[in-house]
Amino acid sequence: MDGSDHLVHERSKAQFDVEKMKIVWAGSHYAFQVSNRIARLVAGDPAFRKENRAVLSRKDLFKNTLRKAAHAWKRITELGLSEEEASWLRFYVDELSYAYVHWGMFVPAIKGSGTEEQQNKWLPLATNMQIIGTYAQTELGHGSNVRGLETTANFDPKTDEFIIHSPTLTSSKWWPGGLGKIATHAVVYARLITDGQDHGVHGFIVQLRSLDDHLPLPGITVGDIGMKFGSGAFNSMDNGFVRFDHVHIPRSQMLMRVSQVTREGKYVHSNVPRQLVYGAMVYVRQIIVVDASIALSRAVCIAARYSAVRRQFGSQNHEISATGVETHEISGTGVETQVIDYKTQQSRLFPLLASAYAFRFIGEWLKWLYTDLTQKLEANDFSTLPEAHACTAGLKSLTTSAAADGIEECRKLCGGHGYLSSSGLPELYAVFAPACTYEGDNIVLLLQVARFLMKTISKLPSGRNYKLSGTTAYMGHMEHYLIKYSCNVQKAEDWLKPNTILEAFEARAIRMCFSCAQNLTKFADQSEGFSELSTDLVEAAIGHCQLIVVSKFIEKLQQNIEGNGVKQQLETLCYIYALHLIHKNSGDFLSTGSLNPKQASLANDQLRSLYAKVRPNVIALVDAFNYSDHFLGSVLGCYDGNVYPKLYEEACKDPLNDSVVADGYSEYIQPLLNQQLLNARL
Amino acid sequence: MDGSDHLVHERSKAQFDVEKMKIVWAGSHYAFQVSNRIARLVAGDPAFRKENRAVLSRKDLFKNTLRKAAHAWKRITELGLSEEEASWLRFYVDELSYAYVHWGMFVPAIKGSGTEEQQNKWLPLATNMQIIGTYAQTELGHGSNVRGLETTANFDPKTDEFIIHSPTLTSSKWWPGGLGKIATHAVVYARLITDGQDHGVHGFIVQLRSLDDHLPLPGITVGDIGMKFGSGAFNSMDNGFVRFDHVHIPRSQMLMRVSQVTREGKYVHSNVPRQLVYGAMVYVRQIIVVDASIALSRAVCIAARYSAVRRQFGSQNHEISATGVETHEISGTGVETQVIDYKTQQSRLFPLLASAYAFRFIGEWLKWLYTDLTQKLEANDFSTLPEAHACTAGLKSLTTSAAADGIEECRKLCGGHGYLSSSGLPELYAVFAPACTYEGDNIVLLLQVARFLMKTISKLPSGRNYKLSGTTAYMGHMEHYLIKYSCNVQKAEDWLKPNTILEAFEARAIRMCFSCAQNLTKFADQSEGFSELSTDLVEAAIGHCQLIVVSKFIEKLQQNIEGNGVKQQLETLCYIYALHLIHKNSGDFLSTGSLNPKQASLANDQLRSLYAKVRPNVIALVDAFNYSDHFLGSVLGCYDGNVYPKLYEEACKDPLNDSVVADGYSEYIQPLLNQQLLNARL
Repeated sequence: MDGSDHLVHERSKAQFDVEKMKIVWAGSHYAFQVSNRIARLVAGDPAFRKENRAVLSRKDLFKNTLRKAAHAWKRITELGLSEEEASWLRFYVDELSYAYVHWGMFVPAIKGSGTEEQQNKWLPLATNMQIIGTYAQTELGHGSNVRGLETTANFDPKTDEFIIHSPTLTSSKWWPGGLGKIATHAVVYARLITDGQDHGVHGFIVQLRSLDDHLPLPGITVGDIGMKFGSGAFNSMDNGFVRFDHVHIPRSQMLMRVSQVTREGKYVHSNVPRQLVYGAMVYVRQIIVVDASIALSRAVCIAARYSAVRRQFGSQNHEISATGVETHEISGTGVETQVIDYKTQQSRLFPLLASAYAFRFIGEWLKWLYTDLTQKLEANDFSTLPEAHACTAGLKSLTTSAAADGIEECRKLCGGHGYLSSSGLPELYAVFAPACTYEGDNIVLLLQVARFLMKTISKLPSGRNYKLSGTTAYMGHMEHYLIKYSCNVQKAEDWLKPNTILEAFEARAIRMCFSCAQNLTKFADQSEGFSELSTDLVEAAIGHCQLIVVSKFIEKLQQNIEGNGVKQQLETLCYIYALHLIHKNSGDFLSTGSLNPKQASLANDQLRSLYAKVRPNVIALVDAFNYSDHFLGSVLGCYDGNVYPKLYEEACKDPLNDSVVADGYSEYIQPLLNQQLLNARL
Repeated sequence: MDGSDHLVHERSKAQFDVEKMKIVWAGSHYAFQVSNRIARLVAGDPAFRKENRAVLSRKDLFKNTLRKAAHAWKRITELGLSEEEASWLRFYVDELSYAYVHWGMFVPAIKGSGTEEQQNKWLPLATNMQIIGTYAQTELGHGSNVRGLETTANFDPKTDEFIIHSPTLTSSKWWPGGLGKIATHAVVYARLITDGQDHGVHGFIVQLRSLDDHLPLPGITVGDIGMKFGSGAFNSMDNGFVRFDHVHIPRSQMLMRVSQVTREGKYVHSNVPRQLVYGAMVYVRQIIVVDASIALSRAVCIAARYSAVRRQFGSQNHEISATGVETHEISGTGVETQVIDYKTQQSRLFPLLASAYAFRFIGEWLKWLYTDLTQKLEANDFSTLPEAHACTAGLKSLTTSAAADGIEECRKLCGGHGYLSSSGLPELYAVFAPACTYEGDNIVLLLQVARFLMKTISKLPSGRNYKLSGTTAYMGHMEHYLIKYSCNVQKAEDWLKPNTILEAFEARAIRMCFSCAQNLTKFADQSEGFSELSTDLVEAAIGHCQLIVVSKFIEKLQQNIEGNGVKQQLETLCYIYALHLIHKNSGDFLSTGSLNPKQASLANDQLRSLYAKVRPNVIALVDAFNYSDHFLGSVLGCYDGNVYPKLYEEACKDPLNDSVVADGYSEYIQPLLNQQLLNARL
């Protein structure tokens, strides 16, 4: 069967138009075409091959990444790619390098916080890559608490310069990608001090390395922070540290869009609203939500295809002996069962498939939210900022935690072979896992959401309904949900109504929030109460965020969706997403009385039916992600399902197989076997 | 503060005798002394240093491991260590090699399945390491379903030999540690065929490599299966594949303790009960439970110490601005709060600390169970085998899943720095994660437990209580729990009664099991019903297994435990373990009516008080694990808490920092910055 398509039968069972679903997944016909074209370009270029990443030493891995990044930039320039195309190209090259931070953080920081003059000076240099930049905020001793940063930028009116300084070891900048060995410049966040007065943290453009010989400039100690999780993953990137010893930079290199220091050393604000800067935070987190859906969908694609190829046990020998002990009995010779047909496999895999789609649509919606917010901010309308911020923070937290856990679950769903690097899953996990920590630790973010929710509730006039907009609109129906509401599900099919689901999620979220708000009033000191009840508050915030994802999935289904059977599949996935959350969080729904045990159990029954319904479509639903074998980088997830020969082939490539007898045999094995070890020098 | 102890204050707060707790953790005074002595021996030997594992290429890593393994054997021989001491030494060397499989699986397989004659021949060779063995069961296409193995051992009466053969690619042996490059021999599991008749899977001793030049013997294709999860982890081990092309071995190399093939080719059974072999499965899984408590406790020790050292935010600048948006405001200059004092950190970390202790005690109990079982089996009493088997299978599943998730949680609790290899946590996770899959996939094992439970229930005479022994005794009170029982908790303190907790767990488990049993009766085909309801059955099995862990922890507390305050701390941990399970699984407890929402909420309140109670003792409780800095291998978890200088020191050791300007600069960075890339050859 080598070379043939082992998944043909699975694909023939699909009950919808896969090509149309690809468009839905991509977001538009145009987006599909661009990404598809660039994906093929990258997959077809031998310079972008990525098979042996895991076996390289740190130095070789890093050098190889530099080669790829240079090749990528060469191709971008040669082909005259647009910014959008270039960014797709870097995406499909799928190897983290300085380029990600340069384009994803350095350039946006200058765009967002630089004056027009500063942008005119620095952006051409940056976009031509005549300089390479990084974004240096986090310090060795300071992460979540940005206000605790220690690096100082002291204005010296005599020379019209800032003196950038790291007063302590813990003030070393620590983590910025590209900083360790490559970046020539950085946006450095430091406490602005003028005339002895501390004005808090501001951004400064600081040159780190000479553009002649790449040596660090005087006063700058810079290096790589060492190996990180996984064998490939972020180790292709030089996350770095830097310490400043009284480094002088011109006054003009403070990013001055929002506030300035004058020649006289006066600290003044411009008329640009500082809230515009917060828009950047919404932007970055919105991107991360999209990343979450991509990372999770890759893992789901691999696990789904492999689960359809892998067979284990068969109905004829499925029984385990009477003692409950596995016995080494003679097997029947029939074909074993596809692993994907086990209900235990389905109940773990299918909700992740549904989550990948749910996160895709919430990412799309957040993109809209960001655009909407930006327009409002530019028109000096800051009214939706708190809600938009809470929303993005919460959804970043929810989706990245679920995606990270989901990728690991997919790895486990592939059994032992999921543990091999050639499955692609370890690398996928190691690359994605830090998303739970960077750009806001997921728990810290949920606490911010909770704080926003408590504030929203505190503003509600007591005793009557109140009109709120956006994702907190349902909180205006507090009275209804606290007093009147009861779920009307009486049979499993009743769960197939969007409103029934929405109301259950709203009731659960509102009751959890209200209970927290009530408990908070028992504390004389609000801050102490918030701290004491923080785990309850986190759980309430999760309830609120899950509701948002469910409701936006349902809204998506109200749009016009083209393609035979496409909408039906999405409906099934939407119900699976919602009902698996109900099952997983049944404690919340039951303890708040939003459901009774019978209704929770009916949700579970309905979930089983939905698994059966989606089963024939699963391979087509992961095909709709349109991931090339190059991008997936997984022998278990390959399109043709010809898994075993590929596993064998990949194994043979390991450097340990270069020689028949292992390097080290004569020193460490032969003397041992010959009992001559005591005389050996080890 | 460099070099000083940053955790002195934490240690001074402990309310119990740490030295006495070390004895409790170790299991006995003797066990503490032996392990402590060997730990120091290893930690003090420069040849066993392990810092740079993650930066090595596969080949260098592997060779270095061979060196360490040889050095370990040299020291074992030189010092004349006992088998127990030798095994501690390998444990503290803490680097996976062929030695683990040789001692942990090859030698036990011969002891368990070899005749006396076979043992006399092979054990001296193996225990002197004149041969190195591995255990070759799993195949490329066959894992959980041992009965599906394809490798054949065809008896040839003409030559009095077996012909070992791999008929297909999927029959390649795949995964055995040490197989890829090192093992000279293997116990190979293959389908025994005599005279065309298939007698199912049996074990055979097969020589793989020449003892002269280490080359594979004729007919044997063998190699390494390639890189696995993580950068160090299992990559120091040559997990391998082997294919047999009609390899002849003498008839005497079939492991014949239970069944034999005679000179005439007749397949006969000895009078040794085959159940004895199943005892081996109980043995291995019991060891894995102990491993789970060790792996989890290492991670908890690192996360707890770092959480006490790390400070972030302070009460004076803890507030987030009114919009819910973080602001880059001026920070107060006061000392920030220890991360361990945040309730959200406590609610994640402290249950894991409690779990580590709980798993330690369940491991101890399983050791007793195994000894008890072995005595019974040797006396031809097989009555407790099914229960012992279900128990070990379920607890292996429960503890390894919880430990793997818990290690990752500990990594996240260390924020960004937990993602650095120097934190030790990525390696710890990558090493432990496969325990969820090997020696029985965790979901497959829970299904076996569920099958046993359903069988137990089906045997109960209906309508009256029934006496059952062991861990299913509570099922004899079916009637009580289904009809009469209701939890009597009315205030938070009521949860501090062992019986109240036990009854709630028993009610929940029995009701979930009973509900499954009832639903099963609705299916005409039992096997179809079992498959359809398998996710419910898995959840019921988890409920049963959690009950076992809780009940054995409570039993432990009824023993005489020496040391000032030691028992009180263990009581607190036991309550934390039980109540956090109630909170996490509140859906189960509520839907079965084992608790009402008020009682679940009181459990949560009590949990908060327990966190406050254990807080001053946490550092001392992880000190009681008695792990050396060498064994922990973590800059975040170091005993003196002097984290930041150590992080910096470790970073500087990365090979990327060997040169100031990165290797690759002139080829890939300089031409890019100088806009000369288009002419460059990449």
